[in-house]
Amino acid sequence: MSDDNHPIRIGVMSCTNIVRKLSRAINLAPNATIAAIASITNSVEETKSFAASNGFPPTAKIHSSYESLLQDPDVDAVYLPIPTSLHVEWAVRAAENGKHLLLDKPVALNVFDFDLILAACEAYGVQFVDGTQWMHNPRTAKIQQLITDPDSFGHLKSVHSCFSFAASEDFLRNDIRVKPGLDGLGALGDAGWYTIQAALLANDFKLPETVTALSGPVLNDAGIVLSCGALLSWEEGITATIYCSFLANLTMEVTAIGTKGTLRVHDFVIPFQETEASFTTSTRSCLNEHKVMTELPQEACMVIEFARLVGEIKNKGAKPDGFWLSISRKTQLLVDAVKESIDNNLEPVFLSGR
Amino acid sequence: MSDDNHPIRIGVMSCTNIVRKLSRAINLAPNATIAAIASITNSVEETKSFAASNGFPPTAKIHSSYESLLQDPDVDAVYLPIPTSLHVEWAVRAAENGKHLLLDKPVALNVFDFDLILAACEAYGVQFVDGTQWMHNPRTAKIQQLITDPDSFGHLKSVHSCFSFAASEDFLRNDIRVKPGLDGLGALGDAGWYTIQAALLANDFKLPETVTALSGPVLNDAGIVLSCGALLSWEEGITATIYCSFLANLTMEVTAIGTKGTLRVHDFVIPFQETEASFTTSTRSCLNEHKVMTELPQEACMVIEFARLVGEIKNKGAKPDGFWLSISRKTQLLVDAVKESIDNNLEPVFLSGR
Repeated sequence: MSDDNHPIRIGVMSCTNIVRKLSRAINLAPNATIAAIASITNSVEETKSFAASNGFPPTAKIHSSYESLLQDPDVDAVYLPIPTSLHVEWAVRAAENGKHLLLDKPVALNVFDFDLILAACEAYGVQFVDGTQWMHNPRTAKIQQLITDPDSFGHLKSVHSCFSFAASEDFLRNDIRVKPGLDGLGALGDAGWYTIQAALLANDFKLPETVTALSGPVLNDAGIVLSCGALLSWEEGITATIYCSFLANLTMEVTAIGTKGTLRVHDFVIPFQETEASFTTSTRSCLNEHKVMTELPQEACMVIEFARLVGEIKNKGAKPDGFWLSISRKTQLLVDAVKESIDNNLEPVFLSGR
Repeated sequence: MSDDNHPIRIGVMSCTNIVRKLSRAINLAPNATIAAIASITNSVEETKSFAASNGFPPTAKIHSSYESLLQDPDVDAVYLPIPTSLHVEWAVRAAENGKHLLLDKPVALNVFDFDLILAACEAYGVQFVDGTQWMHNPRTAKIQQLITDPDSFGHLKSVHSCFSFAASEDFLRNDIRVKPGLDGLGALGDAGWYTIQAALLANDFKLPETVTALSGPVLNDAGIVLSCGALLSWEEGITATIYCSFLANLTMEVTAIGTKGTLRVHDFVIPFQETEASFTTSTRSCLNEHKVMTELPQEACMVIEFARLVGEIKNKGAKPDGFWLSISRKTQLLVDAVKESIDNNLEPVFLSGR
């Protein structure tokens, strides 16, 4: 007898805004269901109300502590969108309790911390996927396919990726993303994470040789990055520039240039439309607009992929799939390298051996 | 009595491909006419044939030497598209002969050379305009207006500009743009010139504080730049990254990000269509496509502007207008700075006082 048709039971940890979006995504995913929620800041009544107003199934359990949720035998996996500084503790405890992990980005404050999470996932045989939604948009697979096609794109030469948004005064004073004790990587760990992953994707997830922060990073009084740029360099003169900022108008660009083709995306992080995502390619002689239809929003695609991998383990005895974990680690390594270069007077950081 | 309605009489020096394009532009400009041509590589017969096949007026004189053209009293101004290494000699001689100057870019091999041209123009009261055509497209003025509008664009934060094309094997072996003795600035003086001018335009032609070449420039065996990138930094964290290359697919992008708006151009150097040029702007809430109609191609707009300024001097006794000269000098200064940084192990070059 198979449990194949039982949706993966996900517990969500916290009642933040991103949980609203992910709850909808879990509800949309045919192979996943919300089994439980835990909040340590809300009362049980408030959490119940949050669950009801976000379409949780009536069967979803309300936990008043993370421990309690992690010990719930009716929970297969957890979605963990808590501040980055708490990731190691709770991701490791989730793994110890055998809960598969959908962990928000940045995955850790640095790669050393991430390796603790990675080791726990390996030790306890749990699946890991990070919460970078655009990576699961069907458009992204199409983009990767075109960039790696030597006939139409040739060999990659240059990538520019940029994600900025103009944060409010309130955000710049109070958001966890500008607080050293919470998400201490600031715009680099938030917006920069996406731009780095885009540069990696264009390079078929090969690590660059060097990472150099560009002059002019903007830091707040606590030393948190509000805006910065970096250059990533691969062998054979392939380069990528990234730019991330909390201080500039909403922009989500990727431009990748090969010897034969150029690819442009204007909304790579969050597509302007939920069910259709576009990009353009051009060669010397012509410009093509590509539209990729998506039945479900990209965050639901992410949940489906996560639940599929968990299902392979739970129902078919498969081993955890290390693909997403390896991409998370590479991205974290590059986030760290940009930070190290900023802290080290913009000196290049050599990735060899890391 | 006024000569206002007499078109400015332009002599073109050489029979290169760019002269075909500019001859058409002069023919299209109502205030200019082709008065003469000089070629030192073609026979008189060949030059006559070139003139005929490019729609020169039958009155256009054929000169077999540059000296002869420069002494022709029926020539008001010259278009000089000869190799950069010859610019100082022939631009200065043109000025000495009272001929106004439309000089192709890059204007010189370095700013010291350019200052010799500048001094000659000032000494002999001749008008100077460089041959960067896109600067004269009506779209460019519209772009500049929008970028400098604090209401819709806010304050500039970041610019990325890129111009690349995949040169043929023959070009990479034989074109004057890859030869030290001819156009020794390579891709930086050619494609890079445009990207630097775009970054300057976005900054209202204010010079940056520092220029730093990015790692990974590609040079040929003779040390000529085939591909490179650079970071330009202004006060208050404003940065521009530029990328220029002879080794990557045709791409002509500008992305400028302000605190309130983002502006994108995909064909800034040569618009995809001759009589209509577009760009997009976006704010947090909406995306606008702008189309700017142009009755004449941008190279004709450039000739009209040049002839207009020459006409002011010739017909109205005005002084030469220094605007275009100052932009050419700033661009050359930044081209030099990128080259200096490449030659100096990617150290930043400080522009203060230059």
